[in-house]
Amino acid sequence: MTRFKITVEYDGGPFVGWQAQDNGSSVQAKIEDAIRGFCGEDVKVFGAGRTDSGVHALGQVGHFDIEASHSADTVRDGLNFHLKPCPIAIISAEEVDEEFHSRFSAKKRYYLYRMVARRAPMTVRRGTVWNVRQMLDVASMHEAAQVLVGNHDFTTFRATLCQAKSPVKTLDEISVYASGDEIHITCNARSFLHNQVRSFVGSLKHVGEGKWTAADMKAALVAADRKRCGPVAPAHGLYLTHVDY
Amino acid sequence: MTRFKITVEYDGGPFVGWQAQDNGSSVQAKIEDAIRGFCGEDVKVFGAGRTDSGVHALGQVGHFDIEASHSADTVRDGLNFHLKPCPIAIISAEEVDEEFHSRFSAKKRYYLYRMVARRAPMTVRRGTVWNVRQMLDVASMHEAAQVLVGNHDFTTFRATLCQAKSPVKTLDEISVYASGDEIHITCNARSFLHNQVRSFVGSLKHVGEGKWTAADMKAALVAADRKRCGPVAPAHGLYLTHVDY
Repeated sequence: MTRFKITVEYDGGPFVGWQAQDNGSSVQAKIEDAIRGFCGEDVKVFGAGRTDSGVHALGQVGHFDIEASHSADTVRDGLNFHLKPCPIAIISAEEVDEEFHSRFSAKKRYYLYRMVARRAPMTVRRGTVWNVRQMLDVASMHEAAQVLVGNHDFTTFRATLCQAKSPVKTLDEISVYASGDEIHITCNARSFLHNQVRSFVGSLKHVGEGKWTAADMKAALVAADRKRCGPVAPAHGLYLTHVDY
Repeated sequence: MTRFKITVEYDGGPFVGWQAQDNGSSVQAKIEDAIRGFCGEDVKVFGAGRTDSGVHALGQVGHFDIEASHSADTVRDGLNFHLKPCPIAIISAEEVDEEFHSRFSAKKRYYLYRMVARRAPMTVRRGTVWNVRQMLDVASMHEAAQVLVGNHDFTTFRATLCQAKSPVKTLDEISVYASGDEIHITCNARSFLHNQVRSFVGSLKHVGEGKWTAADMKAALVAADRKRCGPVAPAHGLYLTHVDY
């Protein structure tokens, strides 16, 4: 039995999310199907982050155990062959020891949110960035985002259906900056609540438009009240970019 | 009668190219349809670069004349409304005098070619970059590309069906560099021959793989023989990024 760690990139658009569900194709199930096609084994794939429907990944991490003996590169190429034509790619595979667990060994998760503020609709980047029509003040957004850093009760910024036992988490870093004609919001933490990043982004858009100040962001956080959150930003601008172990 | 200059972004994937043709939708025809929808006028739209089928644009420039009196922003928003759901966006519109001609007044055209060298297939970027499976030596590609700069007979690097009167053109600049996990090839010139950039890129890939040296690139250029060109790179990695006037 060999445990493989895989780094996975996907376009979340066609999927119900990472996790297998009854109502459509999941990334997890597609990879499990590819493993079955590759070596005939019926195994479960565990993932570091349970990305929601429509959320993309550039560096999701998963792991699984198979009986068959193959080099890591053969596993990568074999899974990619069997994943076609799904927009899911195994960027790399490596053998790891049995103590490695993609979800429980993860020390930090990194997310990126991409926005484009312009009147004209998206073309080449359709489905990969959030197109907002209002011009946004990036410096104010970055400043207001800093009130979120640290250990807080993030009830305001988590989905009502979030299954985490506690709403208290530690946000290590969050940055808002211009990147070409895009606005990028990056953040990292040991773990995130359900819809937390998209809730941050929707609230930061209020700041960018001048509707909220940094003090309003702070008040929304301290209120620990879901009704104080800005509108949740759409899934298709969000990327799980990296996981540290 | 008012002449408008428009800056246009599009995903070339669904189109037969910029120019109206009998065998499918063109970007030009879609914009002409949108003008008809916007103000009921039947006009011709001229473009700075006749991008081929599948080639994208971030900054194509066009112009047209209409009788109706509208602000430039109203023209931009009105055309974008009537272009939906096509992946064509009018980034900006401005009134210009009647001497402005998007094609004949253009002083310089800028192209970008995007490649990703990795074994794993594309996901989020599918259809927007050329995925090559071999690792490429970017520094060698940049060095070899420099032999193309200047005034040359580019017969080797133009499509046999190219309609330009002369194969002699002046390439002002070409650069090959890493950008994140992508390899970008940018170049600019007053004008280009048919398939010239894609012919450069296909030949530069030979250099990146170590099959050709800079001297081989030079020999291919000097031969002025289409049979000496590398395989033409696919359309979906190419972008017309900017036009100078």
